[in-house]
Amino acid sequence: MAPTVYDVTTWPGATVSPYTDIGLVINQIIADIKSQQTSQTTRPGAVIYIPPGHYTLQTTANIDIGFLTIKGSGHGFMSEAIRDDVNHSAWVETLPGSSHVQIANTNQVGFLVDRATDPGANGRLNSVIFQDFCIDGVSSSKPYLPGNGKTGIKVQYDTDSVRVEGMGFVYLATALTIRNADAFNITNNFIAECGNAIQMISSSIVGKITNNYLISAWAGNSIFMENNENCVISGNSLLWGARMQFKNVNRAVITGNKFVSNFSGMIVHETACHEQLISGNHFRRIFGDGGPARNDDLYGMVQLNGNDNSVTANTFSFDVPAANVVPSGATPTVVLVKGGARNFLATNKLVSNISVRHVLDPSASATKVLWSGTSSQLQDLTGGNMSFVATP
Amino acid sequence: MAPTVYDVTTWPGATVSPYTDIGLVINQIIADIKSQQTSQTTRPGAVIYIPPGHYTLQTTANIDIGFLTIKGSGHGFMSEAIRDDVNHSAWVETLPGSSHVQIANTNQVGFLVDRATDPGANGRLNSVIFQDFCIDGVSSSKPYLPGNGKTGIKVQYDTDSVRVEGMGFVYLATALTIRNADAFNITNNFIAECGNAIQMISSSIVGKITNNYLISAWAGNSIFMENNENCVISGNSLLWGARMQFKNVNRAVITGNKFVSNFSGMIVHETACHEQLISGNHFRRIFGDGGPARNDDLYGMVQLNGNDNSVTANTFSFDVPAANVVPSGATPTVVLVKGGARNFLATNKLVSNISVRHVLDPSASATKVLWSGTSSQLQDLTGGNMSFVATP
Amino acid sequence: MAPTVYDVTTWPGATVSPYTDIGLVINQIIADIKSQQTSQTTRPGAVIYIPPGHYTLQTTANIDIGFLTIKGSGHGFMSEAIRDDVNHSAWVETLPGSSHVQIANTNQVGFLVDRATDPGANGRLNSVIFQDFCIDGVSSSKPYLPGNGKTGIKVQYDTDSVRVEGMGFVYLATALTIRNADAFNITNNFIAECGNAIQMISSSIVGKITNNYLISAWAGNSIFMENNENCVISGNSLLWGARMQFKNVNRAVITGNKFVSNFSGMIVHETACHEQLISGNHFRRIFGDGGPARNDDLYGMVQLNGNDNSVTANTFSFDVPAANVVPSGATPTVVLVKGGARNFLATNKLVSNISVRHVLDPSASATKVLWSGTSSQLQDLTGGNMSFVATP
Repeated sequence: MAPTVYDVTTWPGATVSPYTDIGLVINQIIADIKSQQTSQTTRPGAVIYIPPGHYTLQTTANIDIGFLTIKGSGHGFMSEAIRDDVNHSAWVETLPGSSHVQIANTNQVGFLVDRATDPGANGRLNSVIFQDFCIDGVSSSKPYLPGNGKTGIKVQYDTDSVRVEGMGFVYLATALTIRNADAFNITNNFIAECGNAIQMISSSIVGKITNNYLISAWAGNSIFMENNENCVISGNSLLWGARMQFKNVNRAVITGNKFVSNFSGMIVHETACHEQLISGNHFRRIFGDGGPARNDDLYGMVQLNGNDNSVTANTFSFDVPAANVVPSGATPTVVLVKGGARNFLATNKLVSNISVRHVLDPSASATKVLWSGTSSQLQDLTGGNMSFVATP
Repeated sequence: MAPTVYDVTTWPGATVSPYTDIGLVINQIIADIKSQQTSQTTRPGAVIYIPPGHYTLQTTANIDIGFLTIKGSGHGFMSEAIRDDVNHSAWVETLPGSSHVQIANTNQVGFLVDRATDPGANGRLNSVIFQDFCIDGVSSSKPYLPGNGKTGIKVQYDTDSVRVEGMGFVYLATALTIRNADAFNITNNFIAECGNAIQMISSSIVGKITNNYLISAWAGNSIFMENNENCVISGNSLLWGARMQFKNVNRAVITGNKFVSNFSGMIVHETACHEQLISGNHFRRIFGDGGPARNDDLYGMVQLNGNDNSVTANTFSFDVPAANVVPSGATPTVVLVKGGARNFLATNKLVSNISVRHVLDPSASATKVLWSGTSSQLQDLTGGNMSFVATP
Repeated sequence: MAPTVYDVTTWPGATVSPYTDIGLVINQIIADIKSQQTSQTTRPGAVIYIPPGHYTLQTTANIDIGFLTIKGSGHGFMSEAIRDDVNHSAWVETLPGSSHVQIANTNQVGFLVDRATDPGANGRLNSVIFQDFCIDGVSSSKPYLPGNGKTGIKVQYDTDSVRVEGMGFVYLATALTIRNADAFNITNNFIAECGNAIQMISSSIVGKITNNYLISAWAGNSIFMENNENCVISGNSLLWGARMQFKNVNRAVITGNKFVSNFSGMIVHETACHEQLISGNHFRRIFGDGGPARNDDLYGMVQLNGNDNSVTANTFSFDVPAANVVPSGATPTVVLVKGGARNFLATNKLVSNISVRHVLDPSASATKVLWSGTSSQLQDLTGGNMSFVATP
């Protein structure tokens, strides 16, 4: 086997069993890689393989080299929420599995991508990959925030083309948090029963979040992003507490996603966001066991606040018993255009069990609402600073 | 190597060569896993690797543990139909390859995911994964149903987050059939020359079927699904006999798919289906070597039957010689709204070599047809219970 | 380990170190495979693994067998352009990494898929797979064409279901060129700093290009394709010099892509292309460091030339300083319908810092422009042979 291929269970340099502290073993492997790859042109990185097994992580794994792949053989998801909710004394297994890493300590980060010394001048950690294993916070309960305070992966240093693929995350306060990423790629993951699923903080450049399951962000966000331009967010299934929260996120492509939520606010522009393309998504609002709503029903299933956003060919399906609407007796809001100019809604389908409507707030100007609802499904508070063509 | 990593070609516990009966070897490996993983909290599962090779499967592989990954090194597709149609005496190879599993017996299931004893209380088989190998029915001929009666993978017991990724399926009556799945993920597979490609039977919860090739379901379905809510079906290429057949499938997101078929009925609501979002798909109807049509040309390229479905921004391209239309002289139907209320068609593009039209059946009410055809491209049998804006 | 699993670093048959000439080692491995797999029904192929490392490729690797997987552990991208632009003396590493193959010679092909002898009668190379490694042209400078003349992968012989997945390509004149492919699959790759990213030449049947980063085709194309029908091109991020150039490409599905370019011409019909579906894409035109424009600003962000193309639910965002428009003082063109009948634009969003407009050339007939701009945003040179509904 090449010296760049490590198996945590067989590497002879480990001073501890990986089942006892896989984080420490990974750190020792990284130290070994560094001791062998010692010049600017001899650092291809390595792959660290985690075979199926239950591993405890006592020590945070600190990835401070580029081109490192940490890879398992399966995201190993099982629904711990169901396990906790029912009598499981007869179950065959009660833990997640496959390549299963359990974070031991409260408020701990499982995998930290960071560098102690900054080489400056756009030095970055390049092409770090997390693939096909499970990070488990072990124990928590809804709404998981602040919960156990655990974070699965935290990318703290500037990166280029970081990849998170095929991973499982469960029972964490935050599954994945990344700052200052260029061209990140988060695809085909299974994130469930976490307070926050994906947090893109500080700023990032372009990026893709595609084809993921993002399940049960009861108190936090399915996706939070700030200061990004030109991201693609497509083909994701955001379930039960679907929420994309954006601050200064411009020109995102948000297509073909499935949103289901017990709450208002499935896409939220917390600060101004411009020129997003929101097309071909299905938004489903239900009323279930999600606990108290984070926002009332006037908040909007989607809340726009910025210029030139386009909302086309989406379905908005609202199904909350009249008695559960907050505030009581209100007409729930589908799309709230809170502010900004020239937002564009066209050919959206509205379905609802009770009366609902779009709302254009006074500071929104020149909004177009075209075949996206009937006359009674639009409340215009702008004094007519808008264009409307009712669905016939 | 960790005790959870098995290679079918090197595992010493096998009583038979994997080339003779890979199913039996896998069952013996699973028995070995069970003998080693014996408590609720010590069952992380394992990975079974199938290196490139031609394997015969005499015995059905029965997966009755969670967190098992069965993985090869390539879907190994080759077109056996082409092989059978031409003189291939000079060909270099005549069988599919890579990690190539050949089902030996008529009416056999290759891989059965099932449990003999039900632990109850939402006990499920979790995170079973099939990845990157080929399942071959060895011999069959169009239309492949009933054909050899072989099934590639049959998931019979309740599962959570089952994954089928990068697989090849060929010459099977049914490639993949799954019942009672929660959060399944079927992506990047290559399914060709099978009677049915993907069958989601009984019921399922959410799910994703994305980025697959589903080729040549001449007699069956590319995708059959019943009793599902909130599934995403996107980015698939359904070729030559494209058909998605649905029963009580609600709120599906069906976007960005390529449909090409020799037959009518590329999306069919066999029973009522509500609130589907069908957007950005390309439907192409051709006339070729598909054999006798399953439905006549009044059946509809798409047949809706339910409430509040949205059909937006699709292209419908019809190209059948007038002489081949059935019944003779009929005007073929593009979208048939067979029943249901408030179905919504907008900004769809129609292309055809002969006159075609949408049809609203008498029991359909309040359908909207907006910029989806000219006046002559709509037949309204509802007595005016609809809204129409002709494409100008 | 099975005899079909090779590791370039440990295979005893190599006559040279893979670090010195990985191409020669791969050719020797292929010769070994051929010597072991000698009949039509005993050729399952093999997998060749490239562990993380810096490898030089002196000899072109010639893949002339089917079912071969060449696989690494990471695309290993790092931005060599940034490396070359800044003082990187303090950087930790200065080369791409992971499984990193460096093409040694000017005008060389890295990996050639070709067969010396054609077995005829639809004999093809089946299911060749390139996965998860990096091909590096080592040195080049903008605009990379003709540059070093190097090609990453060249598929010269007819193939069925070739797959290129998770690969990195950097500093090549052309990353990937494929001719005569049936059902190709190019997904989740990272192609940057190359003259051309993906070239589908001669002809191909169906195909998928999905979820890729295609960055910096400053002089060539992000995607070039000719003589194809029924391709899916979705979810890609085409950055900085985004360009899809088509000749006789019909019925493509082009959805959910992110285009950003310093130039005009993000989708170009070089010859007639019919019935393409272009929906839910975000086109962003900027002015930056791209060097002299390849086309002036009257060329169109999108240039259609063919019949029955549909352009729906896209955002077109134009942001070039007035002083930089070419020709000086011109009104830039958003969609140019250069020719063809019945092209269909609906519900597209226009954003721009200066006046822009769609243009219908005299030979375009019966174009529909519906809610895709205001009256002042359409120049009709057809004498009224079109339909227009202004965005209200």
